[in-house]
Amino acid sequence: MRFTFPFLAISLEVALIVLFGLFVQYETDQNVAQKLNATRSTKMDRFLPLYPLFQDVHVMIFVGFGFLMTFLKSYGFSAVGINLLIAALGLQWSTIAQGLLHSHGQKFHIGIKNMINADFSTATVLISFGAVLGKTTPIQMLIMTIIEIVFFAGNEYLVGEIFQASDIGASMTIHAFGAYFGLAVAGILYRSGLKNGHEKEDSVYYSDLFAMIGTLFLWIFWPSFNAAIAEPGDEQYRAIVNTYFSLAACVITAYALSSLVQHRGKLDMVHIQNATLAGGVAVGTCANMDIHLFTSMIIGSVAGIVSVLGYKILTPFFATKLMIQDTCGVHNLHGLPGVIGGLASIAAIAMGVPSTSSVAMQAAALGSSIGTAVLGGLITGLILRIPIWEQLPDEYCYDDSVYWKVPEYREYDNRFLLYGYHKQLEPEI
Amino acid sequence: MRFTFPFLAISLEVALIVLFGLFVQYETDQNVAQKLNATRSTKMDRFLPLYPLFQDVHVMIFVGFGFLMTFLKSYGFSAVGINLLIAALGLQWSTIAQGLLHSHGQKFHIGIKNMINADFSTATVLISFGAVLGKTTPIQMLIMTIIEIVFFAGNEYLVGEIFQASDIGASMTIHAFGAYFGLAVAGILYRSGLKNGHEKEDSVYYSDLFAMIGTLFLWIFWPSFNAAIAEPGDEQYRAIVNTYFSLAACVITAYALSSLVQHRGKLDMVHIQNATLAGGVAVGTCANMDIHLFTSMIIGSVAGIVSVLGYKILTPFFATKLMIQDTCGVHNLHGLPGVIGGLASIAAIAMGVPSTSSVAMQAAALGSSIGTAVLGGLITGLILRIPIWEQLPDEYCYDDSVYWKVPEYREYDNRFLLYGYHKQLEPEI
Amino acid sequence: MRFTFPFLAISLEVALIVLFGLFVQYETDQNVAQKLNATRSTKMDRFLPLYPLFQDVHVMIFVGFGFLMTFLKSYGFSAVGINLLIAALGLQWSTIAQGLLHSHGQKFHIGIKNMINADFSTATVLISFGAVLGKTTPIQMLIMTIIEIVFFAGNEYLVGEIFQASDIGASMTIHAFGAYFGLAVAGILYRSGLKNGHEKEDSVYYSDLFAMIGTLFLWIFWPSFNAAIAEPGDEQYRAIVNTYFSLAACVITAYALSSLVQHRGKLDMVHIQNATLAGGVAVGTCANMDIHLFTSMIIGSVAGIVSVLGYKILTPFFATKLMIQDTCGVHNLHGLPGVIGGLASIAAIAMGVPSTSSVAMQAAALGSSIGTAVLGGLITGLILRIPIWEQLPDEYCYDDSVYWKVPEYREYDNRFLLYGYHKQLEPEI
Repeated sequence: MRFTFPFLAISLEVALIVLFGLFVQYETDQNVAQKLNATRSTKMDRFLPLYPLFQDVHVMIFVGFGFLMTFLKSYGFSAVGINLLIAALGLQWSTIAQGLLHSHGQKFHIGIKNMINADFSTATVLISFGAVLGKTTPIQMLIMTIIEIVFFAGNEYLVGEIFQASDIGASMTIHAFGAYFGLAVAGILYRSGLKNGHEKEDSVYYSDLFAMIGTLFLWIFWPSFNAAIAEPGDEQYRAIVNTYFSLAACVITAYALSSLVQHRGKLDMVHIQNATLAGGVAVGTCANMDIHLFTSMIIGSVAGIVSVLGYKILTPFFATKLMIQDTCGVHNLHGLPGVIGGLASIAAIAMGVPSTSSVAMQAAALGSSIGTAVLGGLITGLILRIPIWEQLPDEYCYDDSVYWKVPEYREYDNRFLLYGYHKQLEPEI
Repeated sequence: MRFTFPFLAISLEVALIVLFGLFVQYETDQNVAQKLNATRSTKMDRFLPLYPLFQDVHVMIFVGFGFLMTFLKSYGFSAVGINLLIAALGLQWSTIAQGLLHSHGQKFHIGIKNMINADFSTATVLISFGAVLGKTTPIQMLIMTIIEIVFFAGNEYLVGEIFQASDIGASMTIHAFGAYFGLAVAGILYRSGLKNGHEKEDSVYYSDLFAMIGTLFLWIFWPSFNAAIAEPGDEQYRAIVNTYFSLAACVITAYALSSLVQHRGKLDMVHIQNATLAGGVAVGTCANMDIHLFTSMIIGSVAGIVSVLGYKILTPFFATKLMIQDTCGVHNLHGLPGVIGGLASIAAIAMGVPSTSSVAMQAAALGSSIGTAVLGGLITGLILRIPIWEQLPDEYCYDDSVYWKVPEYREYDNRFLLYGYHKQLEPEI
Repeated sequence: MRFTFPFLAISLEVALIVLFGLFVQYETDQNVAQKLNATRSTKMDRFLPLYPLFQDVHVMIFVGFGFLMTFLKSYGFSAVGINLLIAALGLQWSTIAQGLLHSHGQKFHIGIKNMINADFSTATVLISFGAVLGKTTPIQMLIMTIIEIVFFAGNEYLVGEIFQASDIGASMTIHAFGAYFGLAVAGILYRSGLKNGHEKEDSVYYSDLFAMIGTLFLWIFWPSFNAAIAEPGDEQYRAIVNTYFSLAACVITAYALSSLVQHRGKLDMVHIQNATLAGGVAVGTCANMDIHLFTSMIIGSVAGIVSVLGYKILTPFFATKLMIQDTCGVHNLHGLPGVIGGLASIAAIAMGVPSTSSVAMQAAALGSSIGTAVLGGLITGLILRIPIWEQLPDEYCYDDSVYWKVPEYREYDNRFLLYGYHKQLEPEI
């Protein structure tokens, strides 16, 4: 870490500045009007409708994802801090990667919509980050960010431009993609030393409360996420109300299932923090379609149930049988609900809901998203194992103090430890 | 809890999905235009102005109310978690209840405005939740949500449609209603076993800081709450600025009074967390009226003073003499300031401030809100005492660990407890 | 504190109400139209574009600044609480001070733009508050608020109206001004008793996490801060994208430098909490200019580096050699980056970037901002030392329990202390 990390980070930033200098230009009234074939001034239109939606998404990326991952008792600094680092790098790099892909290598203009797409791209990386949380180094995360965004942009181009598939809330291209990419990386980075768990892979009371900050801001702004790049008017409106009610329904079933599957009917914070959001993921692909509100609620209800069952059954199964250790359970929050989202869109179009896409193209999009993610994740995992990068020893997993200057005491009253107890207790922080 | 809660929750969700299937439809450009008797496209108008205001209110409901109630040292999971559960149920059910009432039993279309109203309705239940916080079961809260929203919708219909009263920020219909409903429930559920307090009915340092997250988001977005359904233009603008300055004035007097009434002039977090918000409640009813800015500031100043005095004097009096144990002091934050709001509107109209309502109608609205709330709260309290629902024993009050899987240790350094001290200390968590 | 604080606070509020009654009026459609020389209805235009931007700024002031300062282990109540008090007073008083200055003593109308400017003014005071955090009394902070806003409004009038300088994101008039004002006050209030540090001038694990709430909301909404009062259209758009990319670049270099300058390459929370924001400050002055996106990224990158180096080198130097104890390091987050912002605008205009200002006027604005701030800060510091105000003894610095009723135990499990240890440990809370 001593010099590699600073050197790598600064080199990346210098490269990004050069790329921005070569390719990225401001949007102006003129080129927006040109793009829209419009003659009237687009001054107001360009800015006003999208900016509040962008800011909602922005809060989700930095506060939502960041705090959601603070649930581990000794990994809060990394959760919220490395989240910020990944996102800041990712949004710059994806501006270049997506921009060049869509402009076919020409200079391009960027506006608020590009900023939303840049934030979206980083969401994909942050989802994958959840799968490997606590088991990687900051350097590995910089590298994963750079590689994953290339695969993401490629798949997004394929799904959107070639297949012309419909995925307004990105259930397939962001959520399923991010989850399966992360699972593939986690599979390659499997640690047999952690198969019996790790003392620090656990929450404490306040770390769970901090995580709820993330959950709530994600939950609240999810309608904006699904509606941000929808067509203004009916489609954008439907994306909002469908997501709102899908999420509300999902909360009810997630609570019900959490209580049902737990010892003595108690609610489990892991489920509440995560499964309550599955409705936002699952309704994503068909959020803008005319599917009826009760259908959204059914999708949300199912997602809540599936997500809790995933945490209860699949996560342990993955860890023990498939040798995939998924720290945050991103498969249950993003993977399965993302697949549900894709399948729901296929069912909807098959049942005659109007769409610009077809059943075949939606299926292709789902397959491509999962396939590209797994392929990209496997490649990335292998690259991250190259011995030139430091690997984190098992005993240092899930521990901020490896990469952060951590306060000597956890709590004010840990001065307690000063009074002769610390020798016998061997405080680790 | 073992099976009743999951069964009840899922049954409610199924019923809601059926009701949505029967009655709720998307808004379309056509039916909005029809409703407004407008010929021009309302595409932009429908969506843009209201959505950011909706999102502000949405943050208040889920983050604001949720975290505000985390001040208890061992009830943070329930505060933020049951808040989410209540709100998710409430917003679905109130969409049906309010929709059917206004459509007289016909199918109805819903848009962003309905989502704002749905969020508003849940605010009422969340206020009442504050009065009984820590003393009820999740099942009881599901039941209270269902019943309270019926009474709320009835009173709201009476106040808005029959009396045609003015209550733009809902000081009467939400705040006073929610508070007196909650007090009535708390009165019926009075626990003599807690009359000398409860070891866990107290805050610790970090629980108070978490609560400030709630306070601040409520404070910040209150202007949006009071302006969300106001007429665009002058009325909406006035609702915003009146609330902004009323809240600012309220902060100053709340701090002054908190220091004045406390031992040795110290500030009390209970007052700062709650009384600083009273100005938003109290200015609610006449927020959109042309009352002059300095009047808003007077209303806010008075509310701040009254609210702190309420905490100091009335809450203990209610608990000991009236046998009403009001956990969060909702009477001081919502009840009294709500009444001040109603009275201020009566005074304003009596003094000639232009309004579509009259003194008599405002008085009727205030009376109806309090009367319906007390009646509804008493009935609800009696229903909640029916022996088929589990009652929470006194010793388990204010304690997450009854209904939540709580981490073994509160803090990382509680591994302390591992070293032989825990037997003599009998850790309760 | 016993009676002085309540008396002072209430007197100030009464005075503000009187001043509002005398001078402040609602904006109406008519006077807005008049102001804009417009004939068409400005109903929608007035409200819609600015309100979401206002709310973003509002979150920054109350949640952003408030939580950013909670990093001290025993000063969280004061950080978030006195922040609220200062801001609530400041926004009322600056409405008057700025309004009277611009109306030349006449009655004036206020709208959303004035609310944004009122929030901006309080930001200045909150920045200065950061420099003296933990070392002053609430009474001193009320007085500083009143005085600083007068100097701020004077300088802002000079810069904007007389010099006609360009400072859209207020790098000079808010950030540099607030920092140098605070440093001057801190210099006058220098405490030799703290030159070897103070046991409580330190963070613990959770206080650092709370501070990240502040950091992230500031980071997220900074584009709104820099764009809030920009001309709609190209300038506002550029203010947003320039700030977005400057901040992203700044994160990368701040992380790199934090690791580089620290023992064993570890990241330091102080840098992450603060230096990641320097890019928002530094790009402020020329955020609306046509400087190219890669230039914004260079500005942000430089600001991130300078800010970390400031924390590492300058803060200790200031404390030991210049006798200026800067608690939050506002010089590194606001002072230096603010100066960079001013210099960047000079360079930009010198190199031909179109602007309504000139090199000379920008230099005058920078000089005036720093000069007025230092002068105002020195005067304020001297006033705060007048013996009629209580001074805080050194041993009570950085300690909430002096002015707040603090929970008996920090943590739930501090019941530990109940079991016979507390005598030997002398718990201080």
